[in-house]
Amino acid sequence: MESIIGEYDYKVESFHLDCTERLSLSVLGNQLLNAAARHAESFGFGREALRQRDRAWVFSRLLIQMDAPLCEFDTYTIRTWVADATRWFSTRNFAIYDASGTPVGYASSVWAMMNLATRKAVDLAAELPDYASLVCPENEAPACPIERSRRSNVSTAEPSLVFRPLFCDIDYNGHFNSIRYIEHLLNALPMKVCRNYPVQRMEINYHIECRYGEVLSVYVAEVGDGEYDAEIRKEDGSVSCRSKIVFDLKR
Amino acid sequence: MESIIGEYDYKVESFHLDCTERLSLSVLGNQLLNAAARHAESFGFGREALRQRDRAWVFSRLLIQMDAPLCEFDTYTIRTWVADATRWFSTRNFAIYDASGTPVGYASSVWAMMNLATRKAVDLAAELPDYASLVCPENEAPACPIERSRRSNVSTAEPSLVFRPLFCDIDYNGHFNSIRYIEHLLNALPMKVCRNYPVQRMEINYHIECRYGEVLSVYVAEVGDGEYDAEIRKEDGSVSCRSKIVFDLKR
Repeated sequence: MESIIGEYDYKVESFHLDCTERLSLSVLGNQLLNAAARHAESFGFGREALRQRDRAWVFSRLLIQMDAPLCEFDTYTIRTWVADATRWFSTRNFAIYDASGTPVGYASSVWAMMNLATRKAVDLAAELPDYASLVCPENEAPACPIERSRRSNVSTAEPSLVFRPLFCDIDYNGHFNSIRYIEHLLNALPMKVCRNYPVQRMEINYHIECRYGEVLSVYVAEVGDGEYDAEIRKEDGSVSCRSKIVFDLKR
Repeated sequence: MESIIGEYDYKVESFHLDCTERLSLSVLGNQLLNAAARHAESFGFGREALRQRDRAWVFSRLLIQMDAPLCEFDTYTIRTWVADATRWFSTRNFAIYDASGTPVGYASSVWAMMNLATRKAVDLAAELPDYASLVCPENEAPACPIERSRRSNVSTAEPSLVFRPLFCDIDYNGHFNSIRYIEHLLNALPMKVCRNYPVQRMEINYHIECRYGEVLSVYVAEVGDGEYDAEIRKEDGSVSCRSKIVFDLKR
């Protein structure tokens, strides 16, 4: 089963759609995580194996790009592989294909491994000595033409949305679930854009964890036509995450 | 494929868990809807067929009872059938089985068919003349020992939660998604209970539709040990839904 490139099949169910009737970005985010988890498990460093060692993978960055929409009952395939591993970070890439095998999107994610007792990052090379052998050589990896954006920069004075992560936003560690960030960020953008156009690209850089009940504010700046920078800030002004969202206004 | 009792298989993925590490009630709600939709489709009155006639099924009531938890990677089977049909309402029941075939829960739902142009209920007998023949005779139906609660009654003066349905809460009709009600109701309950005990039973009676951006308040009354009545009210005081939630404090 284990292969340096994991390949997993999915289907767009009716309740995976957002109100534009396309696969919602948060559901896609969860399916990317699912593919990553299944791939990691096949090599013995999945969530459960790590938890027994008091470790967990945490997101440092997530970047999703969709070039064509996925709609109700579409089947799609996610390929995923480890593209890079440094002492502190692992880069995992994804390519998303429609039923005919045509690429419809890409994603890139950067992960750190956390010591659940200390909440500090773990030295990957020391923790998983064989990890580097899982890195897929670039000439063997599927195409993944996706690049990191320039840093977002939001100087807006007033938040577009103030919310608190509640029961349904929290994961088993008591922290604000990484994928739920996608939903709250989209909730803070202008509805007339979200309602009518697909997200073509979304990047989230995770900086500081959030906990249940914290008051969080989403600040948004329109930086181009259908392009937004957004930040989620805590009450003390510290930035929990920075994000860039680009809509495809032509579709 | 079509059978008067539909049977569909599911699996609990990691991202289907709530922070208690059990299958979240909103994901289960979506899977019940999925089973209902697949069953309805097999008889030609699924969402797409109805939409072409400007009709849609809408929830009038949803009642879920879980007697044993479903956990990560568990497979489960949902059986669903039409238990009753009157002029205005169709009752669809569900039984949920674990991998060994043991029942772990039940659900019952009441649906009306809406004319999407007028937003009024449609006479089911006139709209779908053959519908009555789909009602599963009681002696052929799987056991579904689940009863409607007495009416909830909330006289609490202060709301536990005030929220607005935003982009991610809205369905393609522009209305507050029925299953998202589950999340916002749970978000309004005491976290120390939600965090530690499974929901044993949740009933939602849907009264008035809500739209994007409306200010909604959740009023909660503790009516017993681990038992809550809740109402979602609009700004004008009208009740959008009434709910009863019972936690299993012994698990």
